[in-house]
Amino acid sequence: MPDRQTIEAGYRGFQERFVEALLAVDPDARFQPDAWDRPGGGGGLSMVAGGDSAIEKAAVNFSSVSGDTPGQLSERWAIQSDRFYATGVSIIVHPSNPHAPTFHANIRYFETDAGLAWFGGGADLTPHYLVVEDAEGFHLALAESCLRHPVADYPGWKATCDDYFHLPHRGEARGVGGIFFDHLRDRLDDVWAFQMDLADTITDVYPTILERRKDTPFSQAERQWQLYRRGRYVEFNLVWDRGTKFGLETSGRTESILASLPPLVRFEYGYEPEPGSPEAELTELLRAEPRDWVPDSLLSSRATTLRGSHE
Amino acid sequence: MPDRQTIEAGYRGFQERFVEALLAVDPDARFQPDAWDRPGGGGGLSMVAGGDSAIEKAAVNFSSVSGDTPGQLSERWAIQSDRFYATGVSIIVHPSNPHAPTFHANIRYFETDAGLAWFGGGADLTPHYLVVEDAEGFHLALAESCLRHPVADYPGWKATCDDYFHLPHRGEARGVGGIFFDHLRDRLDDVWAFQMDLADTITDVYPTILERRKDTPFSQAERQWQLYRRGRYVEFNLVWDRGTKFGLETSGRTESILASLPPLVRFEYGYEPEPGSPEAELTELLRAEPRDWVPDSLLSSRATTLRGSHE
Repeated sequence: MPDRQTIEAGYRGFQERFVEALLAVDPDARFQPDAWDRPGGGGGLSMVAGGDSAIEKAAVNFSSVSGDTPGQLSERWAIQSDRFYATGVSIIVHPSNPHAPTFHANIRYFETDAGLAWFGGGADLTPHYLVVEDAEGFHLALAESCLRHPVADYPGWKATCDDYFHLPHRGEARGVGGIFFDHLRDRLDDVWAFQMDLADTITDVYPTILERRKDTPFSQAERQWQLYRRGRYVEFNLVWDRGTKFGLETSGRTESILASLPPLVRFEYGYEPEPGSPEAELTELLRAEPRDWVPDSLLSSRATTLRGSHE
Repeated sequence: MPDRQTIEAGYRGFQERFVEALLAVDPDARFQPDAWDRPGGGGGLSMVAGGDSAIEKAAVNFSSVSGDTPGQLSERWAIQSDRFYATGVSIIVHPSNPHAPTFHANIRYFETDAGLAWFGGGADLTPHYLVVEDAEGFHLALAESCLRHPVADYPGWKATCDDYFHLPHRGEARGVGGIFFDHLRDRLDDVWAFQMDLADTITDVYPTILERRKDTPFSQAERQWQLYRRGRYVEFNLVWDRGTKFGLETSGRTESILASLPPLVRFEYGYEPEPGSPEAELTELLRAEPRDWVPDSLLSSRATTLRGSHE
């Protein structure tokens, strides 16, 4: 299995390449590197951009921390462990254009002194307007990345993502989903190879979508709708997201944890979009059962091929 | 003790008078009445205003609900009860002018079929810039209202308010506080009289402050600071506020619960105001030990008088 040094080098490389890929789409995005130390051990490098260009806000953050395992973590993991080590990259991009979707992803690795080790991660898309081509292209890229690796499970992780990014108090999905996986403890070499493939996949797929949508003409009403939808993003992250809640309750680094919040947000009492409008179309999508964005036929044929190749 | 009908009439009257007091300061605030029913029993009347005038957003909400006690409530209250009844008024005002403070208050009454009944409530002020005159005037009005009623405890409730409206993940107070009280189960007639006095007090004191500050000239930088500070309001309400969390987790009426959120909010990574600036002055105040806004001499002399008059 890969050692800490290999994993950190892989994650740092991913951080660099993702920032470069965003800069290729938006050369005016001014990323500010912010290196920080954690009092209890370790630290990180935040790369945060904000401004008036195609990317209104982006955070591409690497961290590598270790220390005494907080009591709540031991409880949540149901393990006995005095010390932990955690490293990962987490990404959020809030584009300026309402027709470009918000993007979130992270890949991470945990280890405890009790000898446990696991990988987790995921990637998901949050559009303000439904653009079927983008949702399908995003899911197809994730599915193909998974299909290249027998340790990966696109259909299962797609369902986990839909379950996780859900706002019970709104009866709405956060967006069109993606994949979400955690606690992958077996075949760590293979999982690591998959994670690096996933990193390359999202470094390609999201900037491509952003490039396609960043110059779409939009009205002030569409901009207002984008700011309104961002309110749901805030609600999800602050009320339901386990990582955010846990981080804030256990004295994590607040600025890093909340780097995910959108730059400008609007809240409005009792707002419902005009029936039949594109805004209503998105709302209906989010309130309906999660959609399948990748044809079953693709998943089953590839699955057969992959099984075949390993027999 | 007052019956439900009396309490509801008192609360509805308070709602009406508070809306009128806001309209006297800002005749352009367009309050929209929104009457709603709760599927499990009861309902409410929300009065929400939003716009470009002195009041950017206000919610003055009455509710009266009853039904089966949610399991979590029984647990939290440590009581056995199958049914509950709750009524109250909750208020939030987000002014347009950065020099005018945000205001929050509520008064409420609970009853269980197990024969328990109690009052709760409070009022607090959240400035974006420190204006000593406003903070002192606000606290003085609350203190005087408390001093008129032997069941009220300004110093204790002021401390409870400071403890409650605190953001541990920022090491900051939400604002300059006020009073906060709950579970007042004894001498309910006297507590009721105090609540109605408090209602009159805040109907007077906050609109007076708003009137004084609503036309203060301000720069775009000051407006941006106001939007940034509102981010802390969102963080407190969604991450730490017990009522909000509880409401969202037990399928309360989302639009009413989140009516408290500011109309427009800005989040920025790693922002710290210029040392020595008015923005830094406020930040330092919020990170320091809570200040006493009412002179001790007033509290002790009045306390003596009150004690004397009851002996």
